[in-house]
Amino acid sequence: MTTDTKRKSLTEPLAARAVDVHGGGPTLFLHPFDVHRMGLHAGESVRVTIGTLPDAPAIVNVSATLVQPGEAGLSGELVGRAGALTGQPVTLAVARRVTSVQWIRHKLDGGRLSPEQIQAVVRDIARGSFTHIEVTAWASALQVHGMDTDEVVAYVNAMVASGERIRFDTGPVMDVHSIGGVPGNKYAPIAVPIVACHGLKIPKTSSRAISSACGTADFMEVVTPVSLSSAEIKRITEEVGGVLAWGGGVQLAPADDAIIRVEYPLALDPKAQLLASVLSKKVAVGATDVLIDIPVGDGAKIPDEAAARALAHDFITVGQRVGLKVEVSLSKGSQPVGRTIGPLLEIREALQVLEGQTEAQAVIDKACTFAGRLLEMGGVAQPGRGKALANATLADGRALAKFRAIIGAQGGDPDVQSKNLNPGPLSIPLHTYDAGLVVGVHNPDLVQIARAAGCPRDQGAGLMLDCQPGDRVEAGGVLYTIYAEHQHRLDAAAELARKLRPFRIEGGEVMEIVR
Amino acid sequence: MTTDTKRKSLTEPLAARAVDVHGGGPTLFLHPFDVHRMGLHAGESVRVTIGTLPDAPAIVNVSATLVQPGEAGLSGELVGRAGALTGQPVTLAVARRVTSVQWIRHKLDGGRLSPEQIQAVVRDIARGSFTHIEVTAWASALQVHGMDTDEVVAYVNAMVASGERIRFDTGPVMDVHSIGGVPGNKYAPIAVPIVACHGLKIPKTSSRAISSACGTADFMEVVTPVSLSSAEIKRITEEVGGVLAWGGGVQLAPADDAIIRVEYPLALDPKAQLLASVLSKKVAVGATDVLIDIPVGDGAKIPDEAAARALAHDFITVGQRVGLKVEVSLSKGSQPVGRTIGPLLEIREALQVLEGQTEAQAVIDKACTFAGRLLEMGGVAQPGRGKALANATLADGRALAKFRAIIGAQGGDPDVQSKNLNPGPLSIPLHTYDAGLVVGVHNPDLVQIARAAGCPRDQGAGLMLDCQPGDRVEAGGVLYTIYAEHQHRLDAAAELARKLRPFRIEGGEVMEIVR
Repeated sequence: MTTDTKRKSLTEPLAARAVDVHGGGPTLFLHPFDVHRMGLHAGESVRVTIGTLPDAPAIVNVSATLVQPGEAGLSGELVGRAGALTGQPVTLAVARRVTSVQWIRHKLDGGRLSPEQIQAVVRDIARGSFTHIEVTAWASALQVHGMDTDEVVAYVNAMVASGERIRFDTGPVMDVHSIGGVPGNKYAPIAVPIVACHGLKIPKTSSRAISSACGTADFMEVVTPVSLSSAEIKRITEEVGGVLAWGGGVQLAPADDAIIRVEYPLALDPKAQLLASVLSKKVAVGATDVLIDIPVGDGAKIPDEAAARALAHDFITVGQRVGLKVEVSLSKGSQPVGRTIGPLLEIREALQVLEGQTEAQAVIDKACTFAGRLLEMGGVAQPGRGKALANATLADGRALAKFRAIIGAQGGDPDVQSKNLNPGPLSIPLHTYDAGLVVGVHNPDLVQIARAAGCPRDQGAGLMLDCQPGDRVEAGGVLYTIYAEHQHRLDAAAELARKLRPFRIEGGEVMEIVR
Repeated sequence: MTTDTKRKSLTEPLAARAVDVHGGGPTLFLHPFDVHRMGLHAGESVRVTIGTLPDAPAIVNVSATLVQPGEAGLSGELVGRAGALTGQPVTLAVARRVTSVQWIRHKLDGGRLSPEQIQAVVRDIARGSFTHIEVTAWASALQVHGMDTDEVVAYVNAMVASGERIRFDTGPVMDVHSIGGVPGNKYAPIAVPIVACHGLKIPKTSSRAISSACGTADFMEVVTPVSLSSAEIKRITEEVGGVLAWGGGVQLAPADDAIIRVEYPLALDPKAQLLASVLSKKVAVGATDVLIDIPVGDGAKIPDEAAARALAHDFITVGQRVGLKVEVSLSKGSQPVGRTIGPLLEIREALQVLEGQTEAQAVIDKACTFAGRLLEMGGVAQPGRGKALANATLADGRALAKFRAIIGAQGGDPDVQSKNLNPGPLSIPLHTYDAGLVVGVHNPDLVQIARAAGCPRDQGAGLMLDCQPGDRVEAGGVLYTIYAEHQHRLDAAAELARKLRPFRIEGGEVMEIVR
């Protein structure tokens, strides 16, 4: 295994030039003359230094028309890092094998890693020194061999050290996080304002959907910018009590995002990664007291209660060792939370709750239970009294006002109203043939259908559930409606829905799509 | 796990247009207008159908200047598949998760796979349906969990079925293959002509270097084209008895190349992959009798004899089950074969042997031993008489004449002479301070230095070993010389050489670079 990380500069500087292309990752366009002169090759991975920026990896693409000899064409991904750059000097260096790949191999071979070894791997992932190949091997190694508690603690600390870190002058700093797996989970835009109403700080960062249909950051983005800097997260939290930001928009534990990206196509979900991912982002955002939600049930990430309790124990143990007070909620994960799935539909339902509508009892109950426990953890409510305080804060409109203050502070429209949020524009209802009792719904099927419809990238795409388990349906009644922004995605979702049949209705029903 | 492979076409056909860029893999350049209209996104993976060609994967890149609305810009990689194409209709389809990823997950989780499941994975890898992520997970799973004999047999058959297959009307069809790990291994251009001289067919395909400094295909390419079609391999073998072609230039077991590509950065080398890789290419090329060379020793792929014997047994067992008669040679793998490493230097040394020079006794001995055994396996020589026949065939010039006939048939210059092959043009000698006995040389270090010098891509780059184990050196004598085509690569190689010190000299020597 090569362990040499020294790099030789290919001396001659080139002149930077922006090339209007993006989507292929950091790409350096060079003229064949320069490629030959420097002994480079199409597809080769190099380190590129633009002006005074730190060096970064890029792939050499060859073109005799996009650039002249002596020019370094930079794709959108590289321009984004460099800003105004035309003519700036660009130097290249040959990328050698990165030292820490040996620790990835060691973990793949079943070995144990020291804190320093884990830190080296995480640092190189965060720097972008690895391709998908090495990162996939790392995720695969964690999936197969796992990590012991000491390794996970080191992994959390390494992830925190790999990025920015927010430090608040005074505590406590609350946070709440669901490990996911349940569609429609929209407690955050309700719970965060409630907690912030009572003088507690709650800098809530959320993820975008990876394997799910819609993450909290995806639906928040419908009504407000969510890409905040860590300075903005700190300032807004100190000013209005909370934020609802995208965790990936700020450099908190940046290695995590690179790892999660390769896990998705393989449906990998190693426990060490889950623990480190959640806890590192909480430490990095400056939280001191964290409530973690583990949805449990058929179709959820954690199917049974015993596994959930073991995971809860790991969260508490590791949390304590990295300086966090962690509590864990086990919640019902076998059906969607509320009636909507998809960015626009979800934020609309949450906003309706904040505006005083009371139909979405499951949403209200989950949000107020979490907010209530956070109020107790933060010392604002007596044990056992938090939920009532949370419900009161929602009912009297203070939560709505605080929500508006938060999105206003983030740059969104503080006067947003649920009635102005319209999904679609395309939709198709899904009917049932037979009357009966809805006895269940298969979450993973709903997620697949919602993604086929365009979630999370198409904000108007999603599902509106007209029925939920426990409801009686009439023959020919609508079970749910698919919304989409593009006809071909609506068609694909409807075709998938016809195949998957996510609802279970007592009495041998037939379900079909009526158009 | 999603198992839906149906794809929805994004109906509107675009007009093909070649874009002068290559190096980033199959890339589709679309105007932002079309990207938006079709509900696509920069970086998204799609299936693209150009004219009447089968669909292929591509990554969407966005540019408002390279293409007009309604145009599909195709990178060099896609143009290469399509040929003359301007204005041809291009249709796109959304890529869904590929069914067989579930079997990759199953293997990663330690499961056993059925022949059908293995075939599905191999077929999808060969088709290019997976990214590096899924292929890396597959290689990692094989590394961690391995395969039992039944699985390996199924794996070989699946790899054969994934590509083209050459069938000769009459046998036997001989082949010889070294599993690698020893630099300078240049028996093939000598052994293949010897075998072909005696009426046996020997369609030898070789690989390019991946982790090594120089593969057989790399040095053969210095004197002849090596990218032959399977029809050409068959025709030339029938006409002149043998070929010396690049295995990757023909679609024999194409999945193998994609897997090997991800193994290199991680230095993965799962046994199941090694067995399947070698045996599938032999079955696909139409071989019936195969001699496999396992170099054994410090710094070789297989360090000890017990492991080599176990691997030999696996080759013979699996070979028999896929219809091959396999014999295995265990050879000395602790030092380079001959005095040269690098494309031009290696073919020059082999050509010198064919021309009658006798300095390179290790090369001559290895080539004639292999050729001799192949002559015995093929029924041309009595057991125990093959090597003498091989030596005689080399000594009397028949081997050289046949070598010239082979490279002439492949399109190379049949009049090539070793004296016209000159390495460099840059070079630097490496001296020893102290006199002493050379007691060893560390192959992996030599490989690293040769690669730093530009091997295998720069044909003139490489190492000339002035000393070998057993030689006495004078104080200040030259141990070896580094050749390179580019100054920065020569500098990098010299710097590495200074650090690694690949030669062990008895008596506490100091080695340094004198410039």
